[in-house]
Amino acid sequence: MTHPSPRGISRRVVVSTLAALPVLGGALPRTLAQAQTADPLPSWNDGAAKQAIVAFVRDTTDSASPKFVTPEERIAAFDQDGTLWVEHPMYTQVVYCLERVPAVVARTPKLKDVEPFKTVLSGNREAIAKLSMKQLEEILAATLTGMTVDEFNAEARAWIGTAKHPRWDRLYTELTYQPMQEVLHYLRAHDYKTYIVTGGGQDFVRTYAQAAYGIPPEQVVGTAGGTKFSYGKDGRPTLTKDPRLLLNDNNAGKPEGIHLMIGRPPRAAFGNSTGDRQMLEYTTAGEGARLAMLVMHDDASREYAYGPANGLPDAKVGTFTQALYDEAGHKGWTVISMKNDWKEIFPSSVGRAIK
Amino acid sequence: MTHPSPRGISRRVVVSTLAALPVLGGALPRTLAQAQTADPLPSWNDGAAKQAIVAFVRDTTDSASPKFVTPEERIAAFDQDGTLWVEHPMYTQVVYCLERVPAVVARTPKLKDVEPFKTVLSGNREAIAKLSMKQLEEILAATLTGMTVDEFNAEARAWIGTAKHPRWDRLYTELTYQPMQEVLHYLRAHDYKTYIVTGGGQDFVRTYAQAAYGIPPEQVVGTAGGTKFSYGKDGRPTLTKDPRLLLNDNNAGKPEGIHLMIGRPPRAAFGNSTGDRQMLEYTTAGEGARLAMLVMHDDASREYAYGPANGLPDAKVGTFTQALYDEAGHKGWTVISMKNDWKEIFPSSVGRAIK
Repeated sequence: MTHPSPRGISRRVVVSTLAALPVLGGALPRTLAQAQTADPLPSWNDGAAKQAIVAFVRDTTDSASPKFVTPEERIAAFDQDGTLWVEHPMYTQVVYCLERVPAVVARTPKLKDVEPFKTVLSGNREAIAKLSMKQLEEILAATLTGMTVDEFNAEARAWIGTAKHPRWDRLYTELTYQPMQEVLHYLRAHDYKTYIVTGGGQDFVRTYAQAAYGIPPEQVVGTAGGTKFSYGKDGRPTLTKDPRLLLNDNNAGKPEGIHLMIGRPPRAAFGNSTGDRQMLEYTTAGEGARLAMLVMHDDASREYAYGPANGLPDAKVGTFTQALYDEAGHKGWTVISMKNDWKEIFPSSVGRAIK
Repeated sequence: MTHPSPRGISRRVVVSTLAALPVLGGALPRTLAQAQTADPLPSWNDGAAKQAIVAFVRDTTDSASPKFVTPEERIAAFDQDGTLWVEHPMYTQVVYCLERVPAVVARTPKLKDVEPFKTVLSGNREAIAKLSMKQLEEILAATLTGMTVDEFNAEARAWIGTAKHPRWDRLYTELTYQPMQEVLHYLRAHDYKTYIVTGGGQDFVRTYAQAAYGIPPEQVVGTAGGTKFSYGKDGRPTLTKDPRLLLNDNNAGKPEGIHLMIGRPPRAAFGNSTGDRQMLEYTTAGEGARLAMLVMHDDASREYAYGPANGLPDAKVGTFTQALYDEAGHKGWTVISMKNDWKEIFPSSVGRAIK
């Protein structure tokens, strides 16, 4: 399932050898030195995907390498849904918005008999699954805007701290991919700034990104609406979330969002669907070492299998088309097979529960 | 000119004592340890302004202090024009846009006889000074958008690398305020992330912020337009600068821009005009230690003196009104007198030239 990489030799040996040199080991803080001597990616099977990551980090952080990248330029971008955590059967944020509908209706009772709110309140899963994109956007606007930033943050944090995924009965934030957590840590240990670049709501993801991924709010780029500054009754400055869309951070919106929020292309980008295509193209268009990777969901028993690249019908979320698979092949992007490349899918606490 | 601070005792003594403790000194990288034993703000006269900065850094970075702020939360925001560098007689970016007009007209010759381009080409300073805001916006749109991001970056970098301020005959990037450079360094040495939050163009400021202030592109928040992703003739992904305004980063737009780009209020904010008022209000509205400072231009001999707070007429740029001065007094914000608080205005190379 993975593309053979031109960097086929074992890079782990080279990295271990480098780390053993006293001149390097002495100058590095302890955590980084440890990261270099131990296997930085223990949940990855040895293969082209793991080797591509290790080679990229080695090449771009060794000052003697022709592919060396200065620490200021070390930016890595990660899609979230389907790349860092589970996106099936429904994007977590959409679950949140649907579950917020009763609260919205309680505040504005006349919505009770108005579509699409009426259908959501009915709890009829089949009818809910058939809502149009326009109706879904109406629900998103009603549940994500119109309140202050502080109110939204409190509501979203309360929900994400208790809501559980139906299949594993675990908090959504526990269902992050252990191998990708290792990549985040590995890159950060080598002075990469790790960013989430998600089609999901920027403010929503920011409420848990630090706890779930070690990524601070300012390193979350997502679909973003405006806010409106005003003074509350007590004269205190307040920002209210506005339905005006500033950035639709999907497809071409991802490079546009990266430019707005970061100001230059990343050196590495990770995605899993056609929504990430332009981000990977933008990342790899520049000179020097670049890393582009796509997570392929081909593991129905441990997680999910979906999408045309697996010979399966198009999924409602996270479409990995055959065309994207082919583009990855032409351009030397690496496809990560969850089934073959990952020893574990989830952190050990969750892993034990599903075995 | 400065407001008396309740923190009147010498904080330098306390800081030096702390730095002498071996438990601290051993764990810190050399540059930080040096910064703590030496005076971190040598270009500042001892007074309420300097003491407020030192007390803020001490209180928020000493883990035993009730005002301690975790490193992740350490965000400081700096207005640019008039706060970090000279803004008179004209914002540097406006000078850039006016000087780009001939190139724009060369590309589209029919603009030669069209206002406001005709007036700019005439070189008549008085007529140019009388251009309306709407006309100025037309010039900004024509000179800052319509080209690829790469083209814009190359043009802006070439200009900023050669254009000089008329009074000092120095590169604009040399006319940054030495005392504020020291504040940037001092905060960063204590794990603060320093951001520029400017009414100027985000992309423009990003072209020199790293070299001029040590601030990377992703930590520049400014007035921002959209970009449009497309494929060039060679199939290479390209972003083109678009006139669509996403963020007007002035006044209420500053807290809105901070929310968009950073996701939470800063702990410290520095400004110099009514355009920074809402940013300072937003910064100080939260709980815990907060620092809000306003640079007052009251030094006509070494730099400029302007604005109602100095009893002088309203300036065309950087208005520091009496109302803002009064608000600072009521709210405990510190006003920095360039004349009284700063030993030096510019870095030593420039300082010698103007003495």
